[in-house]
Formats: sequence, structure tokens, C-alpha cells
Amino acid sequence: MTAFDLVAPMPHTLAVGTRALRWLDPPAGPAVVLLDQTRLPAEEAHLTCRDVATLDHAIRRLVVRGAPLLGLAGAYGVALAACRGEDVAAAADVLGRSRPTAVNLSWGAGQALAAWQAARDAGGGDSAVARQRAAAAALARARAIEAEDAAASAAIARHGLSLVGDRCRILTHCNTGALVSAGEGTAFAIILAAHRAGRVAQLWVDETRPLLQGARLTAYEAGRAGIPHAVLADSAAASLMAAGEVDLVITGADRIAADGSVANKVGTYGLAVLAHHHGVPFVVAAPVSTIDFAAAGPGEITVEQRPGDEVTSFAGTPVAPPGSAAHNPAFDVTAAALVTALVTEHGVARPVNAGTLLDLGARRGTREGAPTDVSMER
Amino acid sequence: MTAFDLVAPMPHTLAVGTRALRWLDPPAGPAVVLLDQTRLPAEEAHLTCRDVATLDHAIRRLVVRGAPLLGLAGAYGVALAACRGEDVAAAADVLGRSRPTAVNLSWGAGQALAAWQAARDAGGGDSAVARQRAAAAALARARAIEAEDAAASAAIARHGLSLVGDRCRILTHCNTGALVSAGEGTAFAIILAAHRAGRVAQLWVDETRPLLQGARLTAYEAGRAGIPHAVLADSAAASLMAAGEVDLVITGADRIAADGSVANKVGTYGLAVLAHHHGVPFVVAAPVSTIDFAAAGPGEITVEQRPGDEVTSFAGTPVAPPGSAAHNPAFDVTAAALVTALVTEHGVARPVNAGTLLDLGARRGTREGAPTDVSMER
Repeated sequence: MTAFDLVAPMPHTLAVGTRALRWLDPPAGPAVVLLDQTRLPAEEAHLTCRDVATLDHAIRRLVVRGAPLLGLAGAYGVALAACRGEDVAAAADVLGRSRPTAVNLSWGAGQALAAWQAARDAGGGDSAVARQRAAAAALARARAIEAEDAAASAAIARHGLSLVGDRCRILTHCNTGALVSAGEGTAFAIILAAHRAGRVAQLWVDETRPLLQGARLTAYEAGRAGIPHAVLADSAAASLMAAGEVDLVITGADRIAADGSVANKVGTYGLAVLAHHHGVPFVVAAPVSTIDFAAAGPGEITVEQRPGDEVTSFAGTPVAPPGSAAHNPAFDVTAAALVTALVTEHGVARPVNAGTLLDLGARRGTREGAPTDVSMER
Repeated sequence: MTAFDLVAPMPHTLAVGTRALRWLDPPAGPAVVLLDQTRLPAEEAHLTCRDVATLDHAIRRLVVRGAPLLGLAGAYGVALAACRGEDVAAAADVLGRSRPTAVNLSWGAGQALAAWQAARDAGGGDSAVARQRAAAAALARARAIEAEDAAASAAIARHGLSLVGDRCRILTHCNTGALVSAGEGTAFAIILAAHRAGRVAQLWVDETRPLLQGARLTAYEAGRAGIPHAVLADSAAASLMAAGEVDLVITGADRIAADGSVANKVGTYGLAVLAHHHGVPFVVAAPVSTIDFAAAGPGEITVEQRPGDEVTSFAGTPVAPPGSAAHNPAFDVTAAALVTALVTEHGVARPVNAGTLLDLGARRGTREGAPTDVSMER
């Protein structure tokens, strides 16, 4: 399985405004339509998933990716199963395990499943009408998650802006913009807000091996937004920091344990150590749904190992001798002590530890924008 | 200019024993024949350089690369100019500047130039015979450098072996084996010696973006030697160290300043910081000719900036949006304090500082293998 497939020449047709995931109602649907991110930026192709098996396969292949968007994929996938009359609990289980590290996936699937179960229990019986009502409840929950995610993205941007100084040179890793979210993303939403506020002097874009989400996707989003930027090999970040060319590192997160350990795209941990060594603030941006309070610490986060050929070949061309073994973890885990601040839709945790995360979790139920909308400094 | 060009499918014909650089005598020569490293491992192609301009272009394109081998390229290039009746001093100047960071290049060119000048001065006049004698002297010096480099490689391996413990898991970056040297290389020569001594449990091969010398070349050399190994994205090294899977990091060097600052392939500095953070020894292996006593410190090492398309495209296929800017330094510089030990043909400097380097420099004139052949521990 090759996770992405570049097509040359590049027709350059991607509109970032194109929604990365959308629900298709009957009669054309029910279906979940995905912008195939494995083909970006070379071409803009969509994949219509009419059943859970297709969606599951697409998630595994990284057609759809990014923590918040995977939450939507999980929820809409369960709604799809409900609308089609598939086994809804089984669908939630399958989707929750499509990728082992991203907690949002099982969170989103679980949310839609709970809505479906509640509606079914309330409706009584297993009539066609009851099933239809339960499916509608699952779909309504998915739509609510989508709306919440867009609002969360805006709130993350607002909270995060306070951490960005004037003429800031920001380094980011992987892709965390509109392609991963119903809004403008997580870390990239902050960068966009800072750019609109005239504060971004330079954006350093880690190419993000092996799948180059930085070079392929973030550089595109930065270019479209008019943010001055340059792509670099991941290994060039260290000397940039040593040269004093980086004022702030911002990344997203795929799962955050209760103690504040951050699982994110492989390479994030190394950046955090380097930022610490050079006295550069290292900020993580993610919705509160990314916090997995059931995982006490790093030992309870499973790191997905992906196929070796993502490293040993490139768009089908071998770059290592045939049969070369590869070590290809998709993620790594950064200890909370290395994270300067965690920006969520409910405020900023700083420092990041079990206590500040619990406070954020407690705010999950409160209205966004209420007086709790302040940084925690403890 | 694309620095490497992969050809699929991969016929896998490379014999590592194939010499990366050889001199061709008349009547087929005079010429310098290079194994084109930009085409490895996909195919084994040779480039015959019959004049200095061709050789200069090949060096810039990375057809030939690696610190010790660049020393040979510089020396044989000057000999080529002398044999052809080109302007020898101009040739040494051009070759010395083909790549700004690799000190061996100007060192080798300077050695051959000095031999040529001495012979010409001794011969008196500018007769055909005098010119022929001077050319022979330059060529003899190049051949001597080649022999010395093979001996240095063996001595580096012998000295470095003392730093490798049993069941060692070694991480390396870039390519430092037979392809960069008249012998078995620098860092890789130590790894080979340790493997023959049964001490290598695992070799972690950084793929080494952007030009993938690790995945393309080191993985090939490791496979041929039967060393258990795996290729990884450079950014995966940090979490390997955190997991306790790395006992030792060994790299080569392209230039070492008098204070022990090490310029090497981009990514080396980040590895050194990470090794320090995790308490993993970080060892550099290089011949003494790599030490540039004229450069007092890191500020006097020019870091070569290479074309951005090495990062933004891959084998001619764009991986970033058209027109994306890139930051593409070929090297970075690691402070001596982060280097546990420097292994040279004249012994091991440990710690690495101005004093221990001066001691190594003083040994350059002594016979290798004499009683000076001990580690310095000061």
C-alpha cells in the first residue's frame, strides 16, 4: 500500500476552501465524500464512501487525516451505518480502530453511537420508524460535531493569538489547517490569525517525512493565505533554531494523555527537545476532544507503525535497496514538561499538566466564549 | 539542477567494491572517472571527466561526494589540469571552491598544486620536459593521498572500534562508507569493524533528506555487509533515542574548525542535541585533513545553501506547490561540547576541544601506528 501517489505534472487545482469531508444526503447519498488528501497538491480528487468498509479503508490509507477531521469521519461513518441499516455498534468499533493513535476517531464514532442508542432506547422497539429516528439522531450528532469543530477552530485561533508576538518567525510541522478540520484547523488556525494580525514575519514549514504533509499541504495553505514561508527538510529545523531564526514552534496533536503527554506526527518530539534546548516556546494546539482522560500517560498511547515502504519508496519509486527494512512510526510522544502551552477552544493550559488538563476538561460543558475563556497560569 | 535522478525499475547492479573515483592514464586518459552517486542505487553509471570544468560540474552536482573522496577529487583534478597543460593554479582555485563547506576539496587541490609548484621550481624553466615532470609530481601526490586515505580509513576503524560496546545499537546519518573514501570510509568503517567483531546488534540508518544518501547508499552498504539495519525518516530518530533503542550515534564530518565545531550533513546538529538530551554518546569520525586549523570556530565555516528544488521536488516530481520557497542548507554545525569523541587516523580526541585537536594535528606528520596511536583523554 502506497499512502500517496503524486501525479505529474501538477495541475494545481486544489482550492483549500474545498471541504475535506462532507455528508451527502439521499438521493445522491447517504455517503461521506472525502477530498483525497493523498493526491494533493497534484490533483483534487474526491472519494465517495457509501459504506463503512470504504470509509474505514480510506481512513487507513490517509485519504482523510488530521485529528479533528477524523472525529467528523468517525461520527459521520456511524451515521452512514445507521442510515444504511448496517450494524451501528460494529461500525463504531471498526472506525474507532481504523487508526490506533488518533483518539478523535473513536471519540467521534462514540458520540454518534451514543446519540443513536439514546434515540433508539427512547423510541422503543425496532420498527422502521424507530430506526430512522435513531439514524437521524446519529446524523444530527455528527452535524453538531462539525459545527462545534468549526467553532472550536475559531476559538483556538483566538486563544492562541495571545502567544504570538510581533514579527514572529514560526516553525510548524505536518498539516493542521482547513484540510484537517471543519474550520481553519488547529495550529494553522493560530498562524492564520497571527498573519491577519500582521504578526507573522516568516513561517518555516517542516516538509514532514515520510508523507510530506508539510510540503504538500501546509505550503499550499500558507501560499494561498499569502503567508511568507519556506519549506525545509525536517532535519534543517535544528540549525534554524541555533541561528535564532525561530521564535515559536506550533504543532497540532493526535492524542493527549491525562498527564499532558502529546502524541503527534513523528518528529514533533524531536522538535520539542530542540525547542527546549534553544529556549524557543513549544506550543500545541488541539480541541479538548483530543485529550484522552482514559490514558493516564505515554505508556497508554499506542503509536501506530505504518508500512515501511512509505519510507523506502517514493510515489512508487524505490529509494532504498529492495527488501530494506524500515522503522516507520507515524507518531511520537512528547512529555508535558517540554510543552510550553496547550491551546484549546476552552482556553490555554500553561503549564501543561494533569491539573490544567482537568480544568480544561471541566470546561468542555461550558459555553465557549464565557468568562472561563482565559488562560490558566498555574 | 536536480541533484539526483532515480531510475525505476531498480536493476540493483551496484557493487560497493566499485571504486567511487579512479584515475585513468593515457592513452584512454588522462581523466578522472567517477561512479555517479546521484544514480545509485538504481544504476551504476560512470562519468569520465577529461577536463577540470567537467569535474567541477560533477562535484557541484554531487556525482562525487563525501569528505575524504572530495580530497582525492581535488588532488586528481589538479593533476588532470597539469597533465593537460591547463592553468594549474586556476584549476586548484576552481576546484577548491566547487563546494564551500568541504575543506578536503581545497586541501587535496592545494596538496597537488604544491607538489606541482615545487617540481616546477626545482626543474627550472618552462620546457615541455619540466612541465611533464611537474605534472607527474602532482599526479604522484594525488596517488599518495589516495593511499594515505585508504590507510587512514583502516586506522579510523581500528581506533573507533574501542568506542563500540557489545550488542551495540548504532544510529548513523548520511553516507560515510566505501563510496566516500579510497578505503572503507569514516563512520561506516568503524561500523563495519564493529560488525566484524560481532558487536552490532542493529544499525539505524537515517534516510538523510533531502538527497537520501542514507536510504540510497548506506542501506545498500549495510545490506551488502550483512549488518542488521533499518531505514528511518530523520525525524524518527528522536523517539528511538527516547525509547532507549540507540546506544551510540556515529557520523562523519565535512569540516572541523580549530575549536572542534563539526560541520556535517544537515541534521547532524539536531542528532547531537538529541543524543546529549538522552545521554547517548555522539561520535564523529574523520581524517585529520578534515580539521581546518585556519577556521577558528563555527563563524568561519561557510554553510553551503543548495537549490530549493532538492526539497520541493523529488526525482523531477513536484512535492510542494509550484514556486514554493525552500530553505536548503547542505550542512549544519555542531559545537564541540556536544561531540563525545572525534575519531581520526591518528587517534581519538576525547573531549573534543582546541587542545586535543592541536595534538591530533601535530601527529599528522608522525607514522600512523606508532606509539602516538592512543586515545587522548584530557
